[in-house]
Amino acid sequence: MKKPVTIIDIEVHDVRFPTSRSSIGSDAMNVDPDYSAAYVILKTDHPEDIEGHGLTFTIGRGNELCARAIESLSPLLLNKTLESFTENMGAFWTMITGDSQLRWLGPEKGVIHLATGALVNAVWDLYAKVEGKPLWRLLADMTPEELVACVDFKYITDAITPEEAISMLKEKETTKHERIDYLEKHGYPAYTTSAGWLGYPDEKIRKLCREAKADGWKHIKMKVGSSLEDDVRRAAIIREEVGEDFKLMMDANQKWDVNEAVKNMKILSQFNPWWIEEPTSPDDILGHAKIARAVDPVLVATGEHCQNRTVFKQLMQAGAIGICQIDSCRVGGVNEILAILLMAAKFDIPVCPHAGGVGLCEYVQHLSIIDYIAISGKLEDRIIEYVDHLHEHFVDPVVIKNGNYLLPTEAGYSITMKKESLEEYSFPHGAIWKAESEYKLKTSIIG
Amino acid sequence: MKKPVTIIDIEVHDVRFPTSRSSIGSDAMNVDPDYSAAYVILKTDHPEDIEGHGLTFTIGRGNELCARAIESLSPLLLNKTLESFTENMGAFWTMITGDSQLRWLGPEKGVIHLATGALVNAVWDLYAKVEGKPLWRLLADMTPEELVACVDFKYITDAITPEEAISMLKEKETTKHERIDYLEKHGYPAYTTSAGWLGYPDEKIRKLCREAKADGWKHIKMKVGSSLEDDVRRAAIIREEVGEDFKLMMDANQKWDVNEAVKNMKILSQFNPWWIEEPTSPDDILGHAKIARAVDPVLVATGEHCQNRTVFKQLMQAGAIGICQIDSCRVGGVNEILAILLMAAKFDIPVCPHAGGVGLCEYVQHLSIIDYIAISGKLEDRIIEYVDHLHEHFVDPVVIKNGNYLLPTEAGYSITMKKESLEEYSFPHGAIWKAESEYKLKTSIIG
Repeated sequence: MKKPVTIIDIEVHDVRFPTSRSSIGSDAMNVDPDYSAAYVILKTDHPEDIEGHGLTFTIGRGNELCARAIESLSPLLLNKTLESFTENMGAFWTMITGDSQLRWLGPEKGVIHLATGALVNAVWDLYAKVEGKPLWRLLADMTPEELVACVDFKYITDAITPEEAISMLKEKETTKHERIDYLEKHGYPAYTTSAGWLGYPDEKIRKLCREAKADGWKHIKMKVGSSLEDDVRRAAIIREEVGEDFKLMMDANQKWDVNEAVKNMKILSQFNPWWIEEPTSPDDILGHAKIARAVDPVLVATGEHCQNRTVFKQLMQAGAIGICQIDSCRVGGVNEILAILLMAAKFDIPVCPHAGGVGLCEYVQHLSIIDYIAISGKLEDRIIEYVDHLHEHFVDPVVIKNGNYLLPTEAGYSITMKKESLEEYSFPHGAIWKAESEYKLKTSIIG
Repeated sequence: MKKPVTIIDIEVHDVRFPTSRSSIGSDAMNVDPDYSAAYVILKTDHPEDIEGHGLTFTIGRGNELCARAIESLSPLLLNKTLESFTENMGAFWTMITGDSQLRWLGPEKGVIHLATGALVNAVWDLYAKVEGKPLWRLLADMTPEELVACVDFKYITDAITPEEAISMLKEKETTKHERIDYLEKHGYPAYTTSAGWLGYPDEKIRKLCREAKADGWKHIKMKVGSSLEDDVRRAAIIREEVGEDFKLMMDANQKWDVNEAVKNMKILSQFNPWWIEEPTSPDDILGHAKIARAVDPVLVATGEHCQNRTVFKQLMQAGAIGICQIDSCRVGGVNEILAILLMAAKFDIPVCPHAGGVGLCEYVQHLSIIDYIAISGKLEDRIIEYVDHLHEHFVDPVVIKNGNYLLPTEAGYSITMKKESLEEYSFPHGAIWKAESEYKLKTSIIG
């Protein structure tokens, strides 16, 4: 019998990358993001010094609040054993989201839930490392009962019950190995969002389209929502470059009101988009449903700002989304993602995770992989976002081959950042930020 | 011409009251609240040293996150003039909620939005003090155009447009003075929630019911959601004590899943409740709509955890609420409250604000008053929650007479806390908390 692993210390880092310097990630709503991570390390007494790593993603200012929120939640984990969590993962999640005073700050949304995502993912990273398996494999090796026991069904039983979930998973159980074989051979399909950012000049968009085509991509995403005229011009350029075979996705980053989204998409439909992403407020379930009815057969996609499983549930119940874009750390980590994957499978809505940022590709590959292996069992219309940024900071970065994510093989959740990156990009005292004194001056006199 | 007032410093306080020592405020979800405030003071160069005060309410742990978030937002206000905000209050609100990086942490929800509420309310307090008027009077003196210009209509134009709002207000404009006269004579009706908390023994509930009756109250609220059997027993006691004339409200504090709420309310309906409050997750618009249809004619009430105007909009559009319980500082302060009041008036849904906690009664009296004077123009089925706790810490506390809130007369938003209370209850170094060493030991080993 293994010795229990105790969490003896919790280290929190505020890590920021000065990406705003190069228009990387610019869009209609987020004009100058500095991709950032509130990063946590669970230190343990494991004889091999195994640590659990996790992060939540932000775009700069405010990252300190997520870091501080991780500290506020840390007493819930400190001096406890990994086994006390893994023996009932559902109860663990209920505990970490259920502190009777901290719950007031959400519940289950915003800063406190972003912090929960980092900590919950760190626990799963630790669990997978101790078991010596990549996260997807740890989950794939669970029985339907074990996997479903990781989920807190509070507030979603009107959409799915544990019993229904178990019976859905049982249907897929005997063929799991076939899907693992398939992924080991082919990988999981990806799409690129490196082209079509709002901040890029037309010639750069053309160049990126050509490169995407040459590199074997079949999907491309463009940002919309600045001015309709500008959106139409850039969509025409992209269609001209990539042809009609490419699936074109449009992303409005919440820029529009409901009726404005309907009106603008009537025009932009001429470019035959596959989906329109974040057409309006991420909180507007009825609005998304209205837009979905109006723009059909263009699909409505959302999720990167969707706060929790209760909102995802309603988006599905209302027929408001045709594509479910889970985010690995805006919701409360792996446990809540499993709840969302189960509902998406029941409603037969394809899951195409939000990625990019920093570490999000590393995270979500595991989630799409387990969705295919054990939950939906489907690949049709399912792809993972891919952005070729900041992977060099990770110990076990994603590997893309022929437009597909290859299966991670190292133990854990692939989110461990290199020690030197944690130090160099530490905010505000890391080497990179010391050099950015001009930038610091700018942020100290915001507005 | 008046000299502009510049915000020259912003002071933030973490203030907590050890209310958990006496079961005050205990309910099914919040078992041991320590009523707390992340408190902000806008210091100015006004010749009379006028300050703007604001707070956001929490129930203990995590209050430090709201305080820190106020600091993160403060650069958006510092060294600016009050006049630069008041010349276009709608634009001010768009600015404070629109920082392109901080927005990621919500948007407009959780910690960052609670902090926004404190700061926005502090600006309104400053504005009213500089004008020498109570907040309600400052708002009542505005033209329909001026009042509507305080609102950011982003994401709600599918429910109400600025033009509609102005024309609604114009209908009420000529009779405002009649309603002011009425309120000056009678006050605004209140209800008490001091009875019926879960943590109280039956005899204490009986005693509180008798006191409420003797004091002239006509409404009473009880907490439900622990065990159905217990809820039935306590409801029977309360009805026995207060009779059939009293309006009985039930509050489940989000304890139930959707189908559970429907099932339990079928039983609890025998006690003829006026409303069921927070029957399930505050995020579940479709769930509330389903419950509302099932429990009719009992009304569904919610709002104290409703994150922003976009969710309130949908609750109204879906017919999910019969009572709208705005919270003065969970949403982004006065400007966003005005948006919600306008929508409630359009959908003809009575507004009965959430109060209690610390400072919430002081805040919301102004909001209900302006709703009656200038927006809905109605008093039918409208009452303000009242809890007789912690008012002694305020410079200008609420005054209740014959079960009615009397009109505030001092300039400002009534939220200025006494200097000695700010010091004594400062966490963790104030005198009260130094004495609570036993408590501190308990919280340091949570769980």
